[in-house]
Amino acid sequence: MVSQDALVVFTPSGRRGRFPIGTSVLQAARTLGVDIDSVCGGRATCGRCQVVLSEGEFPKHGICSCAENLSERGENEYAWEKINGAMIDGRRLSCSTTVLGDVVIDVPADSQVHRQVVRKSAEALDIEVEPPVTLHYVEVQQPDMHLPSSDLRRLKEALEFDWRLTDLQVDMRVVQELQGVLRQGNWKVTVAVLDGERIIAVWPGMREKVYGMAVDVGSTTIAAHLCDLKTGEVLASAGRMNPQIRFGEDLMSRVSYVMMKPGGDREMTREVHLSLNDIATQLAAAAGIDVAEIIDATFVGNPIMHHLLFGINPIELGGAPFALATDEAIAGLPATEMDLHIHPGARVYGLPCIAGHVGADTAAVILSEMPYATDVMTLIIDIGTNAEIVIGTRERLLAASCPTGPAFEGAQISCGQRAAPGAIERVRINPDTLEPRFRVIGCELWSDEPGFAEAIAEIGITGICGSGIVEVIAEMYLARIIDQDGVVDGTLATRTPRVKASGRTFVYTLFENEERTLQITQNDVRAIQLAKAALSASIRLLMDKLHIDTIDRVRLAGAFGSHIDVKYAMILGLIPDCTLEHVAAVGNAAGTGARIALLNRRRREEIEVVVRRVDKIETAVEPCFQQYFIEAMAIPHKHHSYPKLRSVVTLPEPRVSESAVSTGRSRRGRRDRPAIEEAQA
Amino acid sequence: MVSQDALVVFTPSGRRGRFPIGTSVLQAARTLGVDIDSVCGGRATCGRCQVVLSEGEFPKHGICSCAENLSERGENEYAWEKINGAMIDGRRLSCSTTVLGDVVIDVPADSQVHRQVVRKSAEALDIEVEPPVTLHYVEVQQPDMHLPSSDLRRLKEALEFDWRLTDLQVDMRVVQELQGVLRQGNWKVTVAVLDGERIIAVWPGMREKVYGMAVDVGSTTIAAHLCDLKTGEVLASAGRMNPQIRFGEDLMSRVSYVMMKPGGDREMTREVHLSLNDIATQLAAAAGIDVAEIIDATFVGNPIMHHLLFGINPIELGGAPFALATDEAIAGLPATEMDLHIHPGARVYGLPCIAGHVGADTAAVILSEMPYATDVMTLIIDIGTNAEIVIGTRERLLAASCPTGPAFEGAQISCGQRAAPGAIERVRINPDTLEPRFRVIGCELWSDEPGFAEAIAEIGITGICGSGIVEVIAEMYLARIIDQDGVVDGTLATRTPRVKASGRTFVYTLFENEERTLQITQNDVRAIQLAKAALSASIRLLMDKLHIDTIDRVRLAGAFGSHIDVKYAMILGLIPDCTLEHVAAVGNAAGTGARIALLNRRRREEIEVVVRRVDKIETAVEPCFQQYFIEAMAIPHKHHSYPKLRSVVTLPEPRVSESAVSTGRSRRGRRDRPAIEEAQA
Repeated sequence: MVSQDALVVFTPSGRRGRFPIGTSVLQAARTLGVDIDSVCGGRATCGRCQVVLSEGEFPKHGICSCAENLSERGENEYAWEKINGAMIDGRRLSCSTTVLGDVVIDVPADSQVHRQVVRKSAEALDIEVEPPVTLHYVEVQQPDMHLPSSDLRRLKEALEFDWRLTDLQVDMRVVQELQGVLRQGNWKVTVAVLDGERIIAVWPGMREKVYGMAVDVGSTTIAAHLCDLKTGEVLASAGRMNPQIRFGEDLMSRVSYVMMKPGGDREMTREVHLSLNDIATQLAAAAGIDVAEIIDATFVGNPIMHHLLFGINPIELGGAPFALATDEAIAGLPATEMDLHIHPGARVYGLPCIAGHVGADTAAVILSEMPYATDVMTLIIDIGTNAEIVIGTRERLLAASCPTGPAFEGAQISCGQRAAPGAIERVRINPDTLEPRFRVIGCELWSDEPGFAEAIAEIGITGICGSGIVEVIAEMYLARIIDQDGVVDGTLATRTPRVKASGRTFVYTLFENEERTLQITQNDVRAIQLAKAALSASIRLLMDKLHIDTIDRVRLAGAFGSHIDVKYAMILGLIPDCTLEHVAAVGNAAGTGARIALLNRRRREEIEVVVRRVDKIETAVEPCFQQYFIEAMAIPHKHHSYPKLRSVVTLPEPRVSESAVSTGRSRRGRRDRPAIEEAQA
Repeated sequence: MVSQDALVVFTPSGRRGRFPIGTSVLQAARTLGVDIDSVCGGRATCGRCQVVLSEGEFPKHGICSCAENLSERGENEYAWEKINGAMIDGRRLSCSTTVLGDVVIDVPADSQVHRQVVRKSAEALDIEVEPPVTLHYVEVQQPDMHLPSSDLRRLKEALEFDWRLTDLQVDMRVVQELQGVLRQGNWKVTVAVLDGERIIAVWPGMREKVYGMAVDVGSTTIAAHLCDLKTGEVLASAGRMNPQIRFGEDLMSRVSYVMMKPGGDREMTREVHLSLNDIATQLAAAAGIDVAEIIDATFVGNPIMHHLLFGINPIELGGAPFALATDEAIAGLPATEMDLHIHPGARVYGLPCIAGHVGADTAAVILSEMPYATDVMTLIIDIGTNAEIVIGTRERLLAASCPTGPAFEGAQISCGQRAAPGAIERVRINPDTLEPRFRVIGCELWSDEPGFAEAIAEIGITGICGSGIVEVIAEMYLARIIDQDGVVDGTLATRTPRVKASGRTFVYTLFENEERTLQITQNDVRAIQLAKAALSASIRLLMDKLHIDTIDRVRLAGAFGSHIDVKYAMILGLIPDCTLEHVAAVGNAAGTGARIALLNRRRREEIEVVVRRVDKIETAVEPCFQQYFIEAMAIPHKHHSYPKLRSVVTLPEPRVSESAVSTGRSRRGRRDRPAIEEAQA
């Protein structure tokens, strides 16, 4: 008997090969490495492996693909449709369809394992889903006294036979549970495998869903997303204050707490672990799942948050030389070691820190924005309680933290406050009358629009947040209330009562009612100047290191980056000159990076390699930093040309919506990537 | 400048190579893979790397090796000698001696890493020491703000530079401790690495010693040895009753307990873990070390003990098909997961079980006796509360358990007892008078020797132990008190009052005083016949499987095997005929196997491979077992020739000393390996 071969071509991958007549389509796909999903291992029960025959002549392949060249619909498919309803569009179960002659087979997007998750509108790149934890359904041989073999060995044989998983390690806990689970599931079980290497869970029967959480541990807030590890979909999000705040508002005060109180680090570690359990419970409840169905978790945070999270005393990060305990990724750490009560076999992954001041959050931003994958010179600025910058291309990447202090968060400003309802976030000053108008978080109206007073009555006007501070100082500069050196012009007191003396300097009154007066003092201007000078000098220093004097594009990450008006950031000299359309806010890029690491194991390896290549610059010890810092105190930089900035400020109103402020996400429109690509062309 | 080379030859390895003038001897040795110890990494502080110059002409190598061809004694060596005393025999520190010309260098045995530990006199083979956990002293670069790098990275760089250890993983706990330890040790630390792959511990300064324990968890007793992981030396031994005894004397009653009481398995697991902690503490105290210096532990035990030890419910082992949860080695399990309070970074290793009735203890016996490494057909019998047998050669190995019941331990015998002071362990019966004489554990005299009554007064005569039972039954057979079918000859009642009726059968009175009467009843004879028939039939079945009818040598493992007189074992037909000198007791071979696995990582891999090749025979389900069993009830086997046995019984007195009984170790003389080798030649 001569075996006859058939040519099988898969689209859209274009992979092709010859197979003996009678080979199943799924088998052919697997042999060619074509991406077809299957949960049941070819038992015609999961329905994930559906494909469609492409009929017609394919001269390029030398094939006439027709229905006769596939086996007829059989018992398996009818049985499946009886339970699940008819398949659409003449689809077939590839596991139950055999090849009888040359065919072209199309694999629909929803039958592919590596689906892409479309990121939220705020994000530009899709995430390819290839999670570290995968599920595998198997039917295990029952024990036979004549062929003694352990339950684990027979489980592994099934995994090897059906899923080609070999040399698997196994958690002790799985070994402990295995015999009960196998018998409970009547020898049919689903196994969770980590990195294709280790069995971390086993459930009776078939299980198709498993979940993971991506967590951004900030100094102020902890934010988390719950994702379906199969589809990549975000099912729930949650956030809460970092409970460590009671040990100190900012990072340094938390380190001081540890210095003063031995064991204080363990106390803070415990607090954040408790909080993570609350968040996990909240996420699970919101998504209607059991918290024990969460089997993976990724974490990002600045170095001190990172160290406290993983039970490392952060004291060395509190002073020079700012040595990290580790700059490797924390991989494969059992969740139980963090007292995290998700699935007991879950492992957690912490992205790597980069340097003493540049943390896993920055690594996550890099992973999300991928400056290492382009020739476009990119500057990423992540302003949180601290500011970190990354500059470079695929050739070379530099990273540094900037000693900005918390002014951009509204701290150290006389009437500053966090971005919350009641905070002024937008300001315009009429250059002729010097009268301001403004908008307040929680209210859609400008202060000079009709109905504002009524609309604001309940919220109140309580202070000014980071983006408001940036705008008011920039507007004061444009209205010449302050000069290039940031000095409030006292002579204007004669033109408007809003400018008046306060001690030996002058203040500008932004708002006043019977309850409170919101004034911008000379010290407030100085605080912003210091912060922006630190940022600006750091950027310039890194540009020097790269021997460049222009940036192709700027990415603003973090809440502040999403809320500020880019135009005003440029007026102040916060960011280098660059065509406005090449500047974009990218939202919580650190959180996105955590989500990418959760959903794709190759991206974990990618960022681990990339961070090793990042050059870390400790700006404070660089000889020219001080000079750059002094120069950058001016508004804008002394080395910037004013006319160029003037052209910038004539651009239209920004598209950042005020409602984005309270949700922490901007409703920006399209991203500028196409524009950049044009620019390159 | 032309670089000049020197020829360096190392003895005893014979490795040779050419090196540039000025190369250190240690460096040359490492390059050639010559085994020279070094703890300090070439810093001339540990003194482990001593070598001796072999002076003279070496025509074979074409060398004249003279003192001028080595660098002169330098500062390092003088400094070392000042602290440690002069080196013997003109030895040199190889790390501080450089090559100036052709030399022959001898590496003394005590400078080799892979030293051999001479096993106790009871053991034949030496154990090569190559432990999974190794110590590495390094001096770590201090952090530099200008070259940001984590403490862990610099530690790893030092380990790579000094020790060629690359791609090390690291325990989270080590990362958590690292910064403190580095600073406490002033950047000099000692690191413990597991399997050359993972950092599991770090201590400030230099540490040269670390320890491990090898534990045999028996149903009745738990026995453990504490070993120096560098020298392999046994520093302390400890043993205690298995606390699970209160849940059931034998294995099946413990499984029954679990069946009746949910959670009973966890209760028993906890008990054995508590006991292990007591043992660890006791061992550490005996050796004068801290219990936290124990960083490795290996475990053996029968399947039910193994499963309970590792927290696996043993219920499946209580009934057909006797499925093990796992038949793999338990490797790399954190000691903390067993609540074992030794070094917190310690891992434990459990040897693999082989089948539902053939456990990790048998694997350890195989590892110790290595039947897989010889062409000599070997039978190993391990009689504990159960009996396991292994037969084969390097070609093929078979293993089985035998349903002997506990008769050989003195249970199920009317006057039986455990081997303890007061138990009769040796018996002789005068074939003419039918009068017995005997010896009792705890007394050196035979019962018919002068002074016996006084000597025994304090101990008392309380029962008969396993070896005593075997001897008395064999002697009763030789004296024709019982016939080949084991029936007590009632007609002898006329010749001696020691034989008398008891119901419908007859008994033989071994001892009688005002306190107690020790009699051998017909049921006692039957119990031993059943036990020996089970063992004997199992052996015959396995021999059938191998198509053999002779055995080259027999190894008796376990306490019973060490105590019985081989001659009587043969008379009863317990073991197949085989020249007496080819039978040897090998003591606690399971414990020795545990110790081998503790001290040598390659032997762990070896036994993992070997057990996969062992064919497990479930004797009870084999068709001819029943027939063999019935045939083997006779004394000796029906298929054995009596005359051959007669020659055996004329052999001299056994050399097993009675004092060995209480210590659990026999004082056997030389092992018969040379004889076997002769036999092969």
